[in-house]
Amino acid sequence: MDVERYRVKENQKVKLGDFATRRDVDVDKNEVKEDWMPANLSKMAELQEKLFAEDQYSVLVVFQAMDAAGKDGAIKHVMSGFNPQGVHVSSFKVPSGEENDHDYLWRIHKQTPRRGEIGIFNRSHYEDVIVARVHDLVEKSQIPPELVTEAIWEQRYRQIRDFERHLAENGTCILKFFLHVSKDEQRERLLDRINKPEKNWKFSAGDTYERQHWDEYMQAYEKMLRETSTESAPWYVLPADNKWYTRFLVSEVILNKLKELDLHYPALSQEDAAEMEKAKSVLEADAAKEGKE
Amino acid sequence: MDVERYRVKENQKVKLGDFATRRDVDVDKNEVKEDWMPANLSKMAELQEKLFAEDQYSVLVVFQAMDAAGKDGAIKHVMSGFNPQGVHVSSFKVPSGEENDHDYLWRIHKQTPRRGEIGIFNRSHYEDVIVARVHDLVEKSQIPPELVTEAIWEQRYRQIRDFERHLAENGTCILKFFLHVSKDEQRERLLDRINKPEKNWKFSAGDTYERQHWDEYMQAYEKMLRETSTESAPWYVLPADNKWYTRFLVSEVILNKLKELDLHYPALSQEDAAEMEKAKSVLEADAAKEGKE
Repeated sequence: MDVERYRVKENQKVKLGDFATRRDVDVDKNEVKEDWMPANLSKMAELQEKLFAEDQYSVLVVFQAMDAAGKDGAIKHVMSGFNPQGVHVSSFKVPSGEENDHDYLWRIHKQTPRRGEIGIFNRSHYEDVIVARVHDLVEKSQIPPELVTEAIWEQRYRQIRDFERHLAENGTCILKFFLHVSKDEQRERLLDRINKPEKNWKFSAGDTYERQHWDEYMQAYEKMLRETSTESAPWYVLPADNKWYTRFLVSEVILNKLKELDLHYPALSQEDAAEMEKAKSVLEADAAKEGKE
Repeated sequence: MDVERYRVKENQKVKLGDFATRRDVDVDKNEVKEDWMPANLSKMAELQEKLFAEDQYSVLVVFQAMDAAGKDGAIKHVMSGFNPQGVHVSSFKVPSGEENDHDYLWRIHKQTPRRGEIGIFNRSHYEDVIVARVHDLVEKSQIPPELVTEAIWEQRYRQIRDFERHLAENGTCILKFFLHVSKDEQRERLLDRINKPEKNWKFSAGDTYERQHWDEYMQAYEKMLRETSTESAPWYVLPADNKWYTRFLVSEVILNKLKELDLHYPALSQEDAAEMEKAKSVLEADAAKEGKE
């Protein structure tokens, strides 16, 4: 499927109203769920093993969205394709005291994936240009006041671009997903959390409060998308009103990236090959001996 | 004293042969050691307390040098002026497996100082453009080979400039010292480590081996100094053949920086002041009661 239609081009002026929140390609739900998605997950598992064996590249997948847009579900489904040994999910909540005592990328950098591994960020450093911007959190922070100027958001976009370029140049492939849910669909999902006892635990009154700031959030997201979607760390704005469709798109984008890396099991050195042949003879001699006993 | 003469200006083409390795200003050794240095240390302690109380800025001091140039001694002497609670020294040795599995700034960023604190780096990310360059360590690393191009050093200088600018913009003041020792003085100090039993533990045959690469090291340092000395994270090339003089210069540069920050004890808010008055009455009532008993 052509997922590049959802990618934000470098410097593209983004109006979220122009991006679909519902499935906008004619695909069959059952076919996707029963055939395409399982096929993707199994190919992803195969490539992940090569990524791990090769031990050179790492992959970082960032999820950002409004509440109830389906981040957790998407992460759960996509993860199910991977060997958990090589995947690590990091959830970034309200920063701790120690985290606030450092620059905002400090806690992020610490959690970046090792070579051979896939790191998934449930929220990320982008909160520092989204919620921080909507709620003026920078003014309330411990950052020296003389450094908090009008230029601060442009500075942060640049800092983030620089940081991600650095990671990419050192072997981390970055993919970023904004799950684009409509305000109506969000309301239904929040109501669902209230009405269904088994979903009550997911409900937080704060989510309803944040909903009041919807337009400010959309503006902050639009700026973020324009300023930080780059060749080496692109944003994808994925329709999020149909969960099955979102998850399928996520799997498509990740799979395309893994294919692009042209991963291979590492070739054995001559010494290693000789070593392996020797081990083989020892094992075969063992077998012969055991056969006799 | 004018320490700015030792600062490398942005984009300045550096020839280390033009920089002094011995004291080149007419100051008296005894006066420096007995009056000026203790005075500096005590002013530094005073300002450190304000830095800590204000809890907004942090200070990062980086030391780089050839072996036996006096990094450890300089750190020990300068530290002695500070309250250890607010200072942290990080020594960066050969990277561990986990460290090599991340980009080279990963382990560095983790150790950057908290707001209010002073972080001292004994060696640093600059090893990744010095020893890595002299010994072709990048080619032998796990970085994907297709990313290791001719541009890699220019890339790293840029990555480091970007990283340090990010730290500075978020409240970390950065000072970088290259302790400039002469090849003759280094030989004497290494011989000293061999000849004096109490210094034997400092000797490593590797140091003598690295000495063979002296000219390559000087070239790598010259490039590093030119490419990474910026307004917000300047390099100082300090003469290192006279230890007392080096240490005094280090204290001067750090002290000037702390003064520049215009640090203050935080002003109490009205509520906090009222709270404090209340606490005072309680303590005074206690005193009155205890007096009666």
